[in-house]
Amino acid sequence: MSRGVAAMIWCPFPDTDSARTAASKLVEERLIACGNIIPQIESVFRWKGEVETSFECGLLCKTDTVHLQKAVARLERLHPYETPAIMGFPVSAAAPATLGWLAEQLGGDGS
Amino acid sequence: MSRGVAAMIWCPFPDTDSARTAASKLVEERLIACGNIIPQIESVFRWKGEVETSFECGLLCKTDTVHLQKAVARLERLHPYETPAIMGFPVSAAAPATLGWLAEQLGGDGS
Amino acid sequence: MSRGVAAMIWCPFPDTDSARTAASKLVEERLIACGNIIPQIESVFRWKGEVETSFECGLLCKTDTVHLQKAVARLERLHPYETPAIMGFPVSAAAPATLGWLAEQLGGDGS
Repeated sequence: MSRGVAAMIWCPFPDTDSARTAASKLVEERLIACGNIIPQIESVFRWKGEVETSFECGLLCKTDTVHLQKAVARLERLHPYETPAIMGFPVSAAAPATLGWLAEQLGGDGS
Repeated sequence: MSRGVAAMIWCPFPDTDSARTAASKLVEERLIACGNIIPQIESVFRWKGEVETSFECGLLCKTDTVHLQKAVARLERLHPYETPAIMGFPVSAAAPATLGWLAEQLGGDGS
Repeated sequence: MSRGVAAMIWCPFPDTDSARTAASKLVEERLIACGNIIPQIESVFRWKGEVETSFECGLLCKTDTVHLQKAVARLERLHPYETPAIMGFPVSAAAPATLGWLAEQLGGDGS
């Protein structure tokens, strides 16, 4: 079983290529077990005082609380934006099979 | 008002048909009030030592903490994967109207 | 740094226009920093005793716990449904750059 609680991270990217590259790196480095990319989202935000919209894609990562902070920090370094929105949170009711899968997929002690 | 706090579950499926079938069952059995299916997501994960991608669809369920564990367990039994990723979590700031709707839609004592 | 913890709100809308209008209002009023609209989701729910499906769109808002309750209440007033599903929750592991961005974008004391 995973030693931590499960956790997820929501992080929009400018496009699917950059999201896929970042997610692959974090899976490779065993900081997340999986990244789900939602290909086209429309974002509404304030830019230089005006409310604007633009198209992005969403990345939802699955990890655990042992690796959460490192995964958030790694995403911040890999992200093409200067100020990315990276929102990580614990998930207290994951299925037992999911916790076993996370334990298998994620690196030893969050190193 | 719902006796529990609101809660949500994120669970990718191989396709919309299997997601729709599972969500319909859980709504029927009053374990969730609603399932939102996001039709096409691209997933990045490790498979037999290699980082791979494949298309799935996402299911986001709305329930409450009284029914959360049972909904997660039921999803695990209904899911076509041997090791599904089922990530349930409490939602502490639902709107009052939402809590009323959950109380109406969900089964008595989580049975 | 933001005085509160980061937070998110999930709220389906009937269509992208109504989601965009509501998200723009909340960004303008500095109750959220950004809204991500997922254009087409399929929802499964009980309606007059029958399990039904219909197409909606999803809105995922980014805010902080100082503004969360006000943002949820404002969404409830702006929403075209009589009983909208508005699910807000704290996010305990946002990136430092994200917390700075939230502090810049959101109104003073949650007023």
